[in-house]
Order: sequence, then C-alpha cells, then structure tokens
Amino acid sequence: MAMSEAGALSFRWGIPKEPVSLDPDMRSFLAEHVGSATPWPAESPAGWVLAAPRLSDDDLATLRTIVGDEHVRIDREARLAHLGGASFSDYARRRVGDVADAPDAVVAPETHDEVEGILRACAERSVAVVPLGGGTSVVGGLRLDRPHIALSLRRMNALVDLDSTSAIVTVGPGITGPRLEALLAPRGFTLGHLPQSWQRATIGGYVATRSAGQASTGYGRSDDMVESLVVATPRGTLELGRGPSSAAGPDLRGLFVGSEGAFGVITRVALRVRRLPTERIYEGVLFPDFAAGREAFREAAQSRTTADVMRLSDGDETRTTLLMSAPGGVAGAALDRYLRLRGVEASRSSLAIIGWEGVDRDAVRARRSATWRVLKRHGAVSLGRRAGESWRRHRFEGPFLRDALLDAGYLVETVESATSWTQLPALHDAVHAALAHSLGPRPGPYVMSHISHVYETGASLYTTVIAVADRADPVGQWSRAKRAVTDAISDQGATITHHHAVGRDHAPWLIQEIGPLGVEVLESVKSGIDPGNVMNPGALLPD
Amino acid sequence: MAMSEAGALSFRWGIPKEPVSLDPDMRSFLAEHVGSATPWPAESPAGWVLAAPRLSDDDLATLRTIVGDEHVRIDREARLAHLGGASFSDYARRRVGDVADAPDAVVAPETHDEVEGILRACAERSVAVVPLGGGTSVVGGLRLDRPHIALSLRRMNALVDLDSTSAIVTVGPGITGPRLEALLAPRGFTLGHLPQSWQRATIGGYVATRSAGQASTGYGRSDDMVESLVVATPRGTLELGRGPSSAAGPDLRGLFVGSEGAFGVITRVALRVRRLPTERIYEGVLFPDFAAGREAFREAAQSRTTADVMRLSDGDETRTTLLMSAPGGVAGAALDRYLRLRGVEASRSSLAIIGWEGVDRDAVRARRSATWRVLKRHGAVSLGRRAGESWRRHRFEGPFLRDALLDAGYLVETVESATSWTQLPALHDAVHAALAHSLGPRPGPYVMSHISHVYETGASLYTTVIAVADRADPVGQWSRAKRAVTDAISDQGATITHHHAVGRDHAPWLIQEIGPLGVEVLESVKSGIDPGNVMNPGALLPD
Repeated sequence: MAMSEAGALSFRWGIPKEPVSLDPDMRSFLAEHVGSATPWPAESPAGWVLAAPRLSDDDLATLRTIVGDEHVRIDREARLAHLGGASFSDYARRRVGDVADAPDAVVAPETHDEVEGILRACAERSVAVVPLGGGTSVVGGLRLDRPHIALSLRRMNALVDLDSTSAIVTVGPGITGPRLEALLAPRGFTLGHLPQSWQRATIGGYVATRSAGQASTGYGRSDDMVESLVVATPRGTLELGRGPSSAAGPDLRGLFVGSEGAFGVITRVALRVRRLPTERIYEGVLFPDFAAGREAFREAAQSRTTADVMRLSDGDETRTTLLMSAPGGVAGAALDRYLRLRGVEASRSSLAIIGWEGVDRDAVRARRSATWRVLKRHGAVSLGRRAGESWRRHRFEGPFLRDALLDAGYLVETVESATSWTQLPALHDAVHAALAHSLGPRPGPYVMSHISHVYETGASLYTTVIAVADRADPVGQWSRAKRAVTDAISDQGATITHHHAVGRDHAPWLIQEIGPLGVEVLESVKSGIDPGNVMNPGALLPD
Repeated sequence: MAMSEAGALSFRWGIPKEPVSLDPDMRSFLAEHVGSATPWPAESPAGWVLAAPRLSDDDLATLRTIVGDEHVRIDREARLAHLGGASFSDYARRRVGDVADAPDAVVAPETHDEVEGILRACAERSVAVVPLGGGTSVVGGLRLDRPHIALSLRRMNALVDLDSTSAIVTVGPGITGPRLEALLAPRGFTLGHLPQSWQRATIGGYVATRSAGQASTGYGRSDDMVESLVVATPRGTLELGRGPSSAAGPDLRGLFVGSEGAFGVITRVALRVRRLPTERIYEGVLFPDFAAGREAFREAAQSRTTADVMRLSDGDETRTTLLMSAPGGVAGAALDRYLRLRGVEASRSSLAIIGWEGVDRDAVRARRSATWRVLKRHGAVSLGRRAGESWRRHRFEGPFLRDALLDAGYLVETVESATSWTQLPALHDAVHAALAHSLGPRPGPYVMSHISHVYETGASLYTTVIAVADRADPVGQWSRAKRAVTDAISDQGATITHHHAVGRDHAPWLIQEIGPLGVEVLESVKSGIDPGNVMNPGALLPD
C-alpha cells in the first residue's frame, strides 16, 4: 500500500515524482512480444467491505494498556493503510476488492518492552501477530486471512548509536533505507543496502528476510551486515552477537536473521556500515552474449576483482533495456554501428552495469582497472559512464513501471534464485521454460533475466516475466505459473529464493529446500519460543 | 594423542621432523619472567589402568553388524589411541595417568549410511557418541567421562568431487588439511585454511567447530567456506545448502556448522576453494607500538585493503618472538639500530606478519601497495620478506614448542576472543589482568597476545600464557585461571570464543553468550533430533 501526497489510499507501489508511463515503443513491443491487453481499472477502496474487527474489547483494552490508546487503531483507514504485500497477486486482489487479509487492529509500540508485552498478551489470548515494517513483501509474508494484529514498527525508527571507530550503527527496526542513509550521510557513513523496495522497506524487514540489494556484491547482503540483534519473542528476549564473528556454537544470529516474524520481532539491530563513498564510477558494458558476460563475472568473483555493483542482463533483458532507456543516449543504428566496429552483434549482446565506489580516488581506479582486466578477456565493450549513471538514476523506477503495466492490463512478476556457476545456465533455461510454458500460449509471455549478485562459487538469477493478465482469475493465473517455476527451480537443486524470503508463497517448497527434518528443526525452534503459534502463522513454515 | 613413527603412543602434540627444544636464551628468559620450573616426566602409558569396556556384548554385536568386525575395536591400544583433546589440561591429565575419558570402543564407519545406522543404534541403546576427527580440541570437546564410543571419521577421508568451474570441493569429514591440500594442489586449487592444528585436524572438525586459521582474513573462516553439508542425526539426515547464499528462512547450515557433534555428525561437506597461489609475498613489519598497528589493521579492514595473512603481536609477544626467531636474521643491536633510524623504539614495538597471495603477480603487487599505503600512515617499518618467510616456515611449530615447555615444567595455554575495534583495547587489558592475577604471584605468568583475523567491525584476540605448572594440581590451576579469564571476556561483552568452539570448557559461559532463552533454543533443536541425548553429551550445551 502507498499513500498519495494528498493522503489517499493507493494499492500500487506509489506515486512517483515524475509520472512513469508506457511510451509508444514499449506499447508496440508489448503488443508484439506479449500480446494486446485491455486497460485494468485501478482499485476503488471507497466501496470495499471490511469485516468488523475480530478482537474482543478485552483484547483491545489490554493492548491499549501497553502502548497507549492512540497506538491501537481499529478504524477502517488504519486497517486498510496496513494491508501489507506488494506482489502482483497482492495488487491483483486489491483490484477486485479482496481485502480479506486486512488486520483487525494496528498496534504501534515504541519500545522493546512494549513489543514484548504485546507478544506476551497476544500469546495468552491466541491473537496472531504480523510484524509490519514497510509492507513490501512480495512473497505473501504479510498476508494472513485470520484475525490478527498488524504490529507496526514504524515508531521504532531511531538511529540509536553510531560507533564510528568500529563502523557499527545501531537502529530500531522500523527505520527505512532512505531515512537511515539521510542520518548516516552527514556523519560520513552509508549502509549501502539498496533492495528494489528501498524507498519503503525497513531495516528490520531487510534482516527478517535476508534481503540483498543492487550493490550487495560489494556491500554484502543484509545478513552479512548484522553485528548483533535483539529479538522479542512470546517467551522473552534474545540478545545475540558479541563480536564480529564467533565460534561459540551454532550461529543463533543466523537463525533469527531470516525468521520472517515467525519466531519473534527484531526490536534492535546493529549493522556494519562503510565510509560514504566520495568516488563513484558506474558504467555500461556490452558483452558479445550472456555466456561471455557470465564467464567474466565468474572470473572476477573468483579472482576477487569484483566491483560493488555487478549486474548482467541476458539477451532478452538487454533488448528491452536498450529499447526503453537507450543507455548513454546511444541507440538504434548508431549503437549497432559502434558495437559492430568492436566485434559485438547488438542482437545477441548482453548488457552489464558495473559500479565501483569508495573514498579514495586511486583505490577506486585501481579496482576498476583490476575488474576491467577480466572483462576485456571476455570481449567486453564499454558503453561509457553515461550509461551507468543513467541506470543509477533510474534504478528505483521498476516498481512504478510495474504499476503502469498493471494499469495497461499486464501481469508482471519476478522470481529469483541462486545456484553454482556450473548449474547457472541450466537454471536459467529451466526458469524460462517453466514460465513460457505455464503462461503461454504465444506471443507471450516475455521472460528476461539478470545476474545481480556474484559469489565465488555461484550467482543469483533474477527473472522478470510479463504476460497478458487473465482478468477472470489473475491470482490463479500467477499461482499456476509460480508453482511451475518454483518446481523447476527446486528440481534444479537451486535455492527457492535468494533474497525475497519464504513468506507464504514459498512455504510449500521449504521441505524441498531443507528436507523434512530441516522443517522439523525449525518447528522445534518455533514451538519452543512461540508455543501458541501466534507469530506470523503460516509464514516461513506452512501452517 | 600423537603416534611416533615407530607407532608408540605419545600424549603430546607430536614428533616434529626436527626436534624443538628450549635454547639457553629462552630458558633464561623463562626463568626471569615466569620463574624456574623443574622438568616434568613424560607420561608412561604402559602402566595406565584402563577400565574394562562398558558396552554390552549385544551393543558391540550390533555395531559390528553395521561397520564390520574389524572396525569396532575395544582393545587397549585403539582406546588409548583415540583419547581426544590437545589442551594443557588434557596433556596434564595424561602426565598423571588419568585416562578416565578413554572411549569404551572405537567405531570407524566408511559411509553416511553406516554413520546413520550407528547413531540410530546408539540412540536406541543410550550409548553416547563422541565424533572424532583429528582429536585436536583444546576446549574439552572430546572429553567424556561416561560410557561412550569414539566415532572415528578417519576412513571417511575422500575427496568426493571437485567442481573446478564453481570452485567447490566436496569431501568426507575425516580428511586432514595436509591431505586435502595435497589432493587439490595438482589440480590447481587450495582450501587455504590453516589453523594451528593443521597437521592433524580434519575438515569435519573445522566445520563442526567454526575454526579460523592463520590466513582467515583473506581466505575466510571455515564457516565462510561451507557451500553445503550433509549431517547424520539419530533422527535421520539433513542435506543443507542449495546455492552460494539463500533467503529461504533461517540459515540452517549455520545451525549445524559449529554444532560440535552435539546435534549430529557431518558426513560430507562442500567447501569453496581458491586457485592455488603462484605468487606469495610475506613480510615482517614493525609498528611503533601495538596501538599503532591495531589502528593500521582497522583502517586496512575498513578500506578493504587487507592482506590474506594479518597478524599483529602486542609488545610482549613481539619481545619473545624477536628473542626466539630473530626474524630475517636481524636481531639484537643490529635490529635496534635499524629501527632507531626509522623512528621505532624496539622495546615498545609491535611485530606484524603480513602476507598476500594470488595467481596474478600484478594483482598481488597491487594489493600489497594498497595495504602498504595504509600501514605507512601508522608508522610501519618493513623488516623484509625474509622475516615473513621465516614466520611462514616455522608457523606450525607452536604446538611442538608447547611440548618442550611442558617437559620443562611449564603450564602453557591459549585463550581467544573477538570484539569490536572500540572494545579491543579494554578486552586486551582485561584478559591480561585476569591471567596475571589468577596465575600470579610474580615473576610469572608471562602473557602475550596477537590479533590474527581482522573484520571491518572488529578483530580477534589470541592470548598465550606461560606459568610454572602447579604439579600438585595442574588441572585445578588452569581451571581457576580459565574461569577468571572467561569471566573477564564475558564481562567485556566479547565472545567467549572466536575459533576454538565451546566444548565442555566454555559450556558454563554459553548462557552469558546467548542468554538463557538462546540456550533453550539450542536445547529444543537438540531434543528434537537427539531426544536420547547421546550425541556428544555435555559438549556445547551443559549436560
């Protein structure tokens, strides 16, 4: 859910500063490659029927005692404003007026003790709790069709401490990326975590879902950044992390990082930060084809000469990106000529965005040279810094574009995974085949992928699919495709999610991911600290 | 336990290729700074009384059915040869003939299925199981004073697969570092994990204890290297890890990495490897003092210009190292003169060993330049490559030297922790004060520390202490000191162990490390998969 500046509810990513719309080129590309669609009327919240709050007066009174009257809301506006989820299915549900997952009350604590009090009270009363940060889950992590409170963490958004010697910032879970960066920048630091949901997602959400971002190759995933955390559970408090690393048994930080609100609520987190970069080089690069780019990325990762941002589009994504953004202003025949001179066939080429950041000009340049030594060996051709800067400037526009595509009547979704370098080509093929088959027949869907995070042993794969939405049953349409593609990912031995988390949408495949005994292990953890199963039931572990 | 080439039992680190002894300089240094000690007779296993095996004939018959008669041994020689543990207390116990922790039988499976069969049988029969790799625990991880089998993993020592594209090696748990490196080198790879116990420790042991090694700053800790693992438990098998990284909920790999045999037995592990370095630069460096070196190491870590090996000795360790090894052949008055010319006062100086490795000469040199830009800012003076190579050549001699010190009648032990850069000076002071106080009075003990692994947010601290052994009660003497120093570490908010694991020696402090609810979480995991508590009882979790 997003709010317009006038305060009106809007079940779309948001209201961009500059309108994002589909230009004629894009429309004709879609018509040709995906099929014609008819515009989809926006949702109209005014007419929605919301069930009466299902909490007892006594439940509400108890919660009010803990956080104060004004922080327990059951009014229609608050409940609709805390409908979580930002997946295609979430938005499709809103377009047909389905708000069965609205919380019965919105409770907004300010302190750890208040959170603990709420969880204890809810456990005693068997009231389910869905912790809510930015509400940007794309895997149904917040969608609960039974009585529950939304535990809004937005008031817990303080920068508690900055240890500039150790480069550790301590924050409340409800702080968003933009707010944290705005507080860190004047003190010379950055977190450097830039998920696609950056404008709205919260730091607690990052950690609870093991998010990765556009610069994770250089800055690390959210889980790599966690120094320590405090977790409130129905059975008390955990304080985990007593140093940068430890051999004191299993990694309990790692058990609560990624626990998706199913074990407890992260009420404080200390994260590694870095010096705010003063030097940045972002550039566009074209490889002869996706395989060449992939090999270059592999070699860079294995020789530890990676950049901070390393993003490589496959041929299909390269085609749409060049169509939509004309990187560096070079496009069409001029681009073709430029590339042909350098031995790259535009129609098969693969676009990469590579970005280096740092505080020392020489060091950034030295790192760039080291990466380029590798890129050149694989036939890379530079498109220059203008292409890189253009990507950087527009990189948060994806979700707005999705709104425009939905308005035009298209289904747009993303799936992501990670696997070893050896298995990556087969994973790419399997994902594309499963989506093409399940969302056929021709001309659509249009399927395109990129690598956005490289490891020494493998890489992530992020796939976007566009099809004509089945307006009679859009949720069923995507659900069948999701099943097919997740089966395909799982059959490949790849992880069911590299950075979107499990939520409810991936929960049926958790048993393939970690085996029946692995699921049992997580269940024993949960039943130990949440015996009443009130913590985000159905997320992470199948209900 | 170590075996001489003639096959005789020897309860000491081992028989070095070249005898390690205390030279006269070292002896007089010890007499002055630690006190005079009287030689300690070596243990004499021939006279030891070993209790009769406490397993029933039926237990033994069942185990023999699973692994074959010849792989279930109850003879005296096998039982003594599988006495685990390499701490001062372990060795002190042997010197007084205490072998109460000897296993009742030694069972050596060859396959995962055999391990699973053994665990199932032992769970049914309430027979405790201590998984045994190299037997090098220094925290009592293998010391169990009740009927148990030693589950020897030495037969499961195969290199199962090498994926050279993804740089992933898959091995059995019983393979040692030297054997793995010998198998990897001809194929152009290295694991690069070099704990002090390298000659004898096994890869399964690394992973089960979250070990770190001399080159962990560059190559990562053992836990950083794990791509996937297979674990046998009394309740079945876990196969964890489906890609380089995942957001599919809590990190279950990280729950079994560091589980110290208390949850199950790692029967297979896939690890990230690197190209075998063809270029190596190791050099000795002197800083004006420990604080200057620490700041240099911090800046290198935070600017991501670290070397692969970064080791910084405090003043006291520098003094003994210069005394013992005369790095680079420069010592005494000549060294003093050289240093004074460069503004370093030898008596307060702090010695660092810095090492860069790689396959590309230019890249290694570029990394060295980047590190040196930082080192210079903090007053570093090079002692040259000869000093670095000398350290590299002698770096596994520590345990042999310990044998010599024990023979001479000294207590030698190490403690280690990690904390943030901000808290590191206070941790250093607290550790030194606790050891000095608990092992006083003067002249001893001699306490010295180094940093051996740097992170962006903090570093490890490794402390060696030498005192005159209390021959009436050496175990009690160390136990009191260990209690004092671990209390001090815990009070500082630092981790009770950075790379030695919990074992039985640290188990009483686990509650401070992760809190009572954290201990409960681990207990729920254990009781779920090991309801009979047969897996290494008392290790990790207090019995």
